[in-house]
Amino acid sequence: MSTTKTINLKNRPEGKPDLNDFEFTTSEIPELEQGEVLLSSKYVSVDPYLRGRMTDAPSYVPPFKLGEPIESGIISEVLESKHDDFKTGDYVSARLPWKEKQVATGDGLMKVDPERASLSAYLGILGLTGLTAYHGLMEIGKPQKGETLIISGAAGAVGSVVGQIGKIVGLHVVGIAGTDEKIRMLRSEFGFDAGINYKTTENMKEAIAQACPDGVDIYFDNVGGEISDAVLYNINKHSRTINCGAIAVYNDTEIPESISVQPFLVKKSSLMQGFIVSDFSDKHREAINQLSEWLNEDKLKYEETIEEGFDNIPQAFLGLFEGKNKGKMVVKV
Amino acid sequence: MSTTKTINLKNRPEGKPDLNDFEFTTSEIPELEQGEVLLSSKYVSVDPYLRGRMTDAPSYVPPFKLGEPIESGIISEVLESKHDDFKTGDYVSARLPWKEKQVATGDGLMKVDPERASLSAYLGILGLTGLTAYHGLMEIGKPQKGETLIISGAAGAVGSVVGQIGKIVGLHVVGIAGTDEKIRMLRSEFGFDAGINYKTTENMKEAIAQACPDGVDIYFDNVGGEISDAVLYNINKHSRTINCGAIAVYNDTEIPESISVQPFLVKKSSLMQGFIVSDFSDKHREAINQLSEWLNEDKLKYEETIEEGFDNIPQAFLGLFEGKNKGKMVVKV
Repeated sequence: MSTTKTINLKNRPEGKPDLNDFEFTTSEIPELEQGEVLLSSKYVSVDPYLRGRMTDAPSYVPPFKLGEPIESGIISEVLESKHDDFKTGDYVSARLPWKEKQVATGDGLMKVDPERASLSAYLGILGLTGLTAYHGLMEIGKPQKGETLIISGAAGAVGSVVGQIGKIVGLHVVGIAGTDEKIRMLRSEFGFDAGINYKTTENMKEAIAQACPDGVDIYFDNVGGEISDAVLYNINKHSRTINCGAIAVYNDTEIPESISVQPFLVKKSSLMQGFIVSDFSDKHREAINQLSEWLNEDKLKYEETIEEGFDNIPQAFLGLFEGKNKGKMVVKV
Repeated sequence: MSTTKTINLKNRPEGKPDLNDFEFTTSEIPELEQGEVLLSSKYVSVDPYLRGRMTDAPSYVPPFKLGEPIESGIISEVLESKHDDFKTGDYVSARLPWKEKQVATGDGLMKVDPERASLSAYLGILGLTGLTAYHGLMEIGKPQKGETLIISGAAGAVGSVVGQIGKIVGLHVVGIAGTDEKIRMLRSEFGFDAGINYKTTENMKEAIAQACPDGVDIYFDNVGGEISDAVLYNINKHSRTINCGAIAVYNDTEIPESISVQPFLVKKSSLMQGFIVSDFSDKHREAINQLSEWLNEDKLKYEETIEEGFDNIPQAFLGLFEGKNKGKMVVKV
């Protein structure tokens, strides 16, 4: 019987996490049962949101347990299979515990194609980030060539992909972000038509009106709060708002007040819709095909930082808080 | 050349309107040009909202002009036609000036079928009221048998039709209204499963939870404001809110604040959509067919009060403010 290394949560960090918050253990890998596969981790995603799950404060997602493995998105190779849908040599994507090798049932495993794109891309632009951007914009936003798209949190992982897809499908694209450097990046690297720095803009309502001379047809909302209030005053008849996040208000213990959206929605025959990426899981395959096609045609830009070695996963995670990554951070095992 | 009577707005009423606010004039009917029809008014709709258009205070709809005709929904017979789509003897529905006879282009005229339902019904249950209820619930609400529907302003013209359609398509239907008598009517006359009197209920959030033990799947919102905030706390995953009106906040000169809807929409993958009936005008015919079928099968209840005589239109209108109508008020010319 062979063994595997596992990385557990050792302590709940206060403030910035450090290496002492993790512990490495070695355990035996159980025999494969019918319906199971043996997986070998190839690429492991490290993400800032994992910090939240290391604490046990009340949150939208349950905390990791002390003495048990951290989990994140992992691309694995199938070493052995007793499951009809998977065979040795397949690659799969799933949210899994940080283990070098592990036995898994088929639940939640999605096959990925190493011919179509690099394996690490399936943790970012072809993973939840890209799928969230694509499904939100295409399924809820239903963009029509020539329309105007505005994005809050535009320099974030999802926002920058939304804006690029917007340009590919022929929209006027405006991004809202919090530093002049981010605004420059949106325009020069990602091809946005205009950007608004909400931290230095006094009258957001007016600034949005100027950046969107034909009004707003689609609003991809990652933040909620006052920025979204300012967008509402600029929406067009039959506009669509995609509610992808409301980080401006997540940390408040009570739901805060903002202007009533209902009169705007009635007057403009306008739609708002929240979603999570799994609402559209039956369209993941189609989305990945389209995104990888754009990626191969160099229409989508995407940055990643790849660290090496299973033992370096905690280090890579900590590096996120020191800005050691450019774009998506992954670890090649 | 023949003549017609017309009813003009003579004075802008202060407070309750009276007969002196109207004047009758007689004018000549012009010769028919190519593309026009000569119409004879058969049924004229009188509606409380017309009061708003008699004043020149800022509003969502433009005011009537002094010395010019009042307009409302009218069912007319085609007396003569130089328009390819209409022939003598056809009946049509349109928003038209209060005239006994008039020449009109084909714009905005919808043919109605006197075999299918009484002509007056096309001003109510088969007119804007019924279409608003039907399209909002069916096109935006997309009801599935067994789901829970809650309606604010449930005893209003639109709300009571929404609830009845909800029962026909197999929903658990809860109505919110402002008197115990209205609540009784919703249950005994219109077949609602439960009702909530928001004026006598202290904790609306809790009362909605009790009346909707499986949560809210569809919210038909005629009011906005605090009632809608209380509903939000009870919405289910993938719920749909139909924003039909926001009367709770229309009269405020500034858009008021209420709780932020975005976190609810994100967490519940939930939709809110505003509309006006003309958004679905390509489906009016289908809706009228279905509504009239239900009407003929006695599945939809509908009340109307019919006054007689063109000269009595102002009187009938004034009667609305003295509660002289039960259900929809129309005048048979």
